[in-house]
Amino acid sequence: MTTLEAGRAASAGTVVIIPAGAFEQHGPGMPLATDLIRAEHVVEQVTARLGGRAVVGPSIPVGVSPHHLAFAGTVTLSTSTFAAVVREYVDSLHRHGWRKVLVVTGHGGNNATLTAVGQDLLTSHPDLQFAWTPVTPLARAVMPADLSEVHGHSGEAETAQMLHIAPELVHRDRLEKGTTSLDELDPVARLSRRDGHPSLPIRYDRLSANGVLGDPTVATPELGQSIVDTVVAGIAGFVADWLAA
Amino acid sequence: MTTLEAGRAASAGTVVIIPAGAFEQHGPGMPLATDLIRAEHVVEQVTARLGGRAVVGPSIPVGVSPHHLAFAGTVTLSTSTFAAVVREYVDSLHRHGWRKVLVVTGHGGNNATLTAVGQDLLTSHPDLQFAWTPVTPLARAVMPADLSEVHGHSGEAETAQMLHIAPELVHRDRLEKGTTSLDELDPVARLSRRDGHPSLPIRYDRLSANGVLGDPTVATPELGQSIVDTVVAGIAGFVADWLAA
Amino acid sequence: MTTLEAGRAASAGTVVIIPAGAFEQHGPGMPLATDLIRAEHVVEQVTARLGGRAVVGPSIPVGVSPHHLAFAGTVTLSTSTFAAVVREYVDSLHRHGWRKVLVVTGHGGNNATLTAVGQDLLTSHPDLQFAWTPVTPLARAVMPADLSEVHGHSGEAETAQMLHIAPELVHRDRLEKGTTSLDELDPVARLSRRDGHPSLPIRYDRLSANGVLGDPTVATPELGQSIVDTVVAGIAGFVADWLAA
Amino acid sequence: MTTLEAGRAASAGTVVIIPAGAFEQHGPGMPLATDLIRAEHVVEQVTARLGGRAVVGPSIPVGVSPHHLAFAGTVTLSTSTFAAVVREYVDSLHRHGWRKVLVVTGHGGNNATLTAVGQDLLTSHPDLQFAWTPVTPLARAVMPADLSEVHGHSGEAETAQMLHIAPELVHRDRLEKGTTSLDELDPVARLSRRDGHPSLPIRYDRLSANGVLGDPTVATPELGQSIVDTVVAGIAGFVADWLAA
Amino acid sequence: MTTLEAGRAASAGTVVIIPAGAFEQHGPGMPLATDLIRAEHVVEQVTARLGGRAVVGPSIPVGVSPHHLAFAGTVTLSTSTFAAVVREYVDSLHRHGWRKVLVVTGHGGNNATLTAVGQDLLTSHPDLQFAWTPVTPLARAVMPADLSEVHGHSGEAETAQMLHIAPELVHRDRLEKGTTSLDELDPVARLSRRDGHPSLPIRYDRLSANGVLGDPTVATPELGQSIVDTVVAGIAGFVADWLAA
Amino acid sequence: MTTLEAGRAASAGTVVIIPAGAFEQHGPGMPLATDLIRAEHVVEQVTARLGGRAVVGPSIPVGVSPHHLAFAGTVTLSTSTFAAVVREYVDSLHRHGWRKVLVVTGHGGNNATLTAVGQDLLTSHPDLQFAWTPVTPLARAVMPADLSEVHGHSGEAETAQMLHIAPELVHRDRLEKGTTSLDELDPVARLSRRDGHPSLPIRYDRLSANGVLGDPTVATPELGQSIVDTVVAGIAGFVADWLAA
Repeated sequence: MTTLEAGRAASAGTVVIIPAGAFEQHGPGMPLATDLIRAEHVVEQVTARLGGRAVVGPSIPVGVSPHHLAFAGTVTLSTSTFAAVVREYVDSLHRHGWRKVLVVTGHGGNNATLTAVGQDLLTSHPDLQFAWTPVTPLARAVMPADLSEVHGHSGEAETAQMLHIAPELVHRDRLEKGTTSLDELDPVARLSRRDGHPSLPIRYDRLSANGVLGDPTVATPELGQSIVDTVVAGIAGFVADWLAA
Repeated sequence: MTTLEAGRAASAGTVVIIPAGAFEQHGPGMPLATDLIRAEHVVEQVTARLGGRAVVGPSIPVGVSPHHLAFAGTVTLSTSTFAAVVREYVDSLHRHGWRKVLVVTGHGGNNATLTAVGQDLLTSHPDLQFAWTPVTPLARAVMPADLSEVHGHSGEAETAQMLHIAPELVHRDRLEKGTTSLDELDPVARLSRRDGHPSLPIRYDRLSANGVLGDPTVATPELGQSIVDTVVAGIAGFVADWLAA
Repeated sequence: MTTLEAGRAASAGTVVIIPAGAFEQHGPGMPLATDLIRAEHVVEQVTARLGGRAVVGPSIPVGVSPHHLAFAGTVTLSTSTFAAVVREYVDSLHRHGWRKVLVVTGHGGNNATLTAVGQDLLTSHPDLQFAWTPVTPLARAVMPADLSEVHGHSGEAETAQMLHIAPELVHRDRLEKGTTSLDELDPVARLSRRDGHPSLPIRYDRLSANGVLGDPTVATPELGQSIVDTVVAGIAGFVADWLAA
Repeated sequence: MTTLEAGRAASAGTVVIIPAGAFEQHGPGMPLATDLIRAEHVVEQVTARLGGRAVVGPSIPVGVSPHHLAFAGTVTLSTSTFAAVVREYVDSLHRHGWRKVLVVTGHGGNNATLTAVGQDLLTSHPDLQFAWTPVTPLARAVMPADLSEVHGHSGEAETAQMLHIAPELVHRDRLEKGTTSLDELDPVARLSRRDGHPSLPIRYDRLSANGVLGDPTVATPELGQSIVDTVVAGIAGFVADWLAA
Repeated sequence: MTTLEAGRAASAGTVVIIPAGAFEQHGPGMPLATDLIRAEHVVEQVTARLGGRAVVGPSIPVGVSPHHLAFAGTVTLSTSTFAAVVREYVDSLHRHGWRKVLVVTGHGGNNATLTAVGQDLLTSHPDLQFAWTPVTPLARAVMPADLSEVHGHSGEAETAQMLHIAPELVHRDRLEKGTTSLDELDPVARLSRRDGHPSLPIRYDRLSANGVLGDPTVATPELGQSIVDTVVAGIAGFVADWLAA
Repeated sequence: MTTLEAGRAASAGTVVIIPAGAFEQHGPGMPLATDLIRAEHVVEQVTARLGGRAVVGPSIPVGVSPHHLAFAGTVTLSTSTFAAVVREYVDSLHRHGWRKVLVVTGHGGNNATLTAVGQDLLTSHPDLQFAWTPVTPLARAVMPADLSEVHGHSGEAETAQMLHIAPELVHRDRLEKGTTSLDELDPVARLSRRDGHPSLPIRYDRLSANGVLGDPTVATPELGQSIVDTVVAGIAGFVADWLAA
């Protein structure tokens, strides 16, 4: 996209969609950039489906990942810096005339800060609508019933998505089970993984020796495609409704 | 509590529980301080039940409420200032030796920033465990089945709690229905209140003319007591497990 | 106060009065919240006396107390966070139409930051008038002539106020003399307590073993009442003049 | 002073004295830099008198002067930036081994922020002693009894000091009375100039048409010398006591 | 790269190389992401050439571009947020053991902030070596002698690089001359483009109607390859020397 | 300059010139304030030459000098605080009506932050023109051909300027060679002093045992005068062109 297309898209009242990821450990078999790769893929698919009613903004490759810092290679922003980045992207887009911005984050660690940014924007940019969404949670309907008791980071669903989107980046031979049941955890970690509140965040090195929650070895590209298709349909549907609202 | 008791409590490995509220419109019938009043009541009950294993820290009377600013009297902190306040409370308590801090927030607008603070504390205070919890969501089990389609702020559950805790502060004659069904909303507001993601935060003056979501006129003190008891039991149980972990 | 009363009060040109305290050691006999309790009591009395011309804003329970951190239980904000809290309270009130805000601080450690906030508001909110006042210094006229040479924190005057306002929170049996004469102090501490300038702030653990300056055992509720009445009259008089100006 | 002398002075346990001023209107007859000129002069005299036990640090030429911004030429720092400057000067000196730093401010608008910085340093630099002092208030003993009812900024005392220190920078022909009595003020301004608390800061364009409080035309260099001598003796005495403590 | 490779690379004393770009107008013919694309390409080539002695860190897709904000699509960070991003990337890498980090920026607007970050890191991370480099300036030796008098942004050299690296993203039919001689500029803009100091930064909409400086129509992929090869050789040589030092 | 002259100068469309220095080691023979002294001298000369078309603003005596902190007496600001100081000076001047501000920095460590401030001002103060310049680099034309291979800080050119401007502050007997050739440096330091990019900033204690780069013993006041005259002519010429533009 050049500045010419950007000018036209801003005037046309399109939505800008920003992919946000993380640069953090994803176990022995998946790349540090896994969350960005998934977010960018979903954003491209959503945009394609919306045929000119949405455009892709610049990515945010690093997110809020302090809980993974014990694993080599993880790079994190503080929540305040991540917030500043999002806010300044949005402010720049707002100057060009866009009034609807959507962030798609492949990393759940960004969710809270995205919510907080959305709150502050209500005051600073009252004429702007800011939305955000995670990826995997949109696919609950197609998730297998027999997921391991503990699952999530670098587990069945994330691995499946990568096997579909970028199989060449997955070291299939290195995929290995992480923590799969609550009784593998110490009592504090178990408390942290309970459903519901209170919330008790802890570091991932206390949750899993290899950084994985769940069993990536059972992931298939077919599940990945199913997840991605569901997520893309969900987001594209939302954007269409939003533009029509 | 004097400094003497504080010294003993810190040495004894107790949990500090901090009530957080909001100072924001709660419709024509309930006080601006509603969320703090509920949080402080719950914290007192929890602490009483834990018999010396937990102590009450200083309150945070104002939270993150930019979405209510169109209604007179609402006072809000930015998300970064609210985060700084929480962080500095925690840092002070950490200096005295406490290693477990729990924030009980009566206001859902604080949730995201509490999550973000918890993330940053993983790096800055690795030997501290920080937990937080909302109030009403812990009482799902006792919530009536026939809640209005749209409900929440100043609605059935919050009003019931206030009728139980501080009936003298509720103007019962002024309680009146707010928005109770999605079809009262404009399309953007409707999208904002859908379940699930993407999230699209909007200001409350777009959601409700009187600032109320749901129907406070059907609230009863009995429901309030039931909610409070459930919440108190849930939090006290968590803290007991936490201390034993 | 609900949002309805707030709306009326803002339109009527009332003053908002905000009580500010501290959460810090007050010796073996008085609660950590002593300064907030005194400030809130004074504010209630002042507001009552002004009959609708002033309203009470949300409290600030924690102030600037780094000098007390050596004593267990003290919670402090940095000066910049305390300033942000005050500024954001004021900014919210300003949005609703209030143009006169008064902070009553029970804790002298907040004075400097309140002054600094007042300076910055001259530029950021030129149409707002911001005033602040301490509590005890307004009562000089009724202070006993025979105060100990060193007195102040948790001493005669503060204890007397608490015996008047909240006697049930004072452990009278634990009240004990603190530092009462300059020759009990080391030379640096002595220099720090001299009258006049230069100012040399030091930590309270260097000023007093039990955190007390002066002799709380001679305090009486009668002195407390006298102090409170004088302070309330002084502040109410100021507000009346201010509104008439 | 070169780095060699600095190294010796730091090892010798000297005090560093930092002059702080303001760059703000001083009426039609005195320079914008008046407060810095007076502070630097006092610091030089104090240091000379202390003969090697104190050294002069870098100046801070601009202070906290938002109340003078309506008058051309005034340059101000926000309180947070002024605080950062002081803190970073102190932190640098602390790295070289100094443990006693004194700021001499010719401008009263800096007092609150200097106090706040001193509070924060108690936590961040517990082994450092930080003192600060204004200039003119140290000379109460020699101040004429017949000062005008309203006096202060660019009035009798400041002008006298400048006539003594830097007469070539004073436009004597332009010196003219400013506000000298309370009844020249509007009611809000009068309230702001009352003795005692509450404090109500206002802008100087509301206090005086020419920016002057008091009557500079009666100032004499003799009074200036007397003020300066008293101030220098006061500060030098303090520093000597401090070093001996 | 997974966390396993990251762990090995950190232990092996490798250099991390971070590509930084901009998301800003590049005239009618080149994409907004031009500077990131060039930086990433150069970093990949450099890393390939260094065979395991360097690894690629996460990109920074948005830089400091306020001077391009008048052109649609430009997204900018403030200098302080860009600095925070770089600092937090570096701090994360430092935690894993890396001690040499190099940023390759395709956008000159980032140079000053990268320099400033490097200064602050001397104090905060004294055991880390931080280097940075622009791209095009390293290729002076191969630059044509007959460049237009005014050239630079989106001109001959940048366009040539894009024709070599990503020709499918260049709209060759839209490439058009921008400002090519000083006499097309107004006097302030001319002063701004003089060689040497003083520096007078101005916005690009004052420098060029189409956002281009120079003549992209004469650019060839051969020149692009020559520039890229020279830049890659220069950086790889530096890194090799650095590792050997 | 009083507020009267300031008012006239602002209305007349003059340029404000701000001298910026550093407070840092300048070897055994030159004062810590060397860079400020040189900047102030140049600014006075430039202003004199411009005869009323420019006025002198307040100085910035301390700059960005973390690389000199190993040498006693060096005081540094962080880059963000230095930026805030410059920005707030400029903002104050802008309020009075000035639209052209020039900073003359005697210290190269300030260059990057001045550039960054200039970038941010393009957005925050679009109607202001902000320029900055170093001192010595403007005098390339008169620099001796036989400078030592390594030269710069406290070397031939800076010492010559001081011998011309303030010979009484130079300890000529203590002037001594610093590092003069690359082969005196360790490999990392040598890499850091290469011409061109990548840039690798390091601390000065790694570059020189006595803090000097070059040979100050050969400096002469004649060279100093020649440098100063050239710099003054360059800046005055720029300002004249700027005002005429």
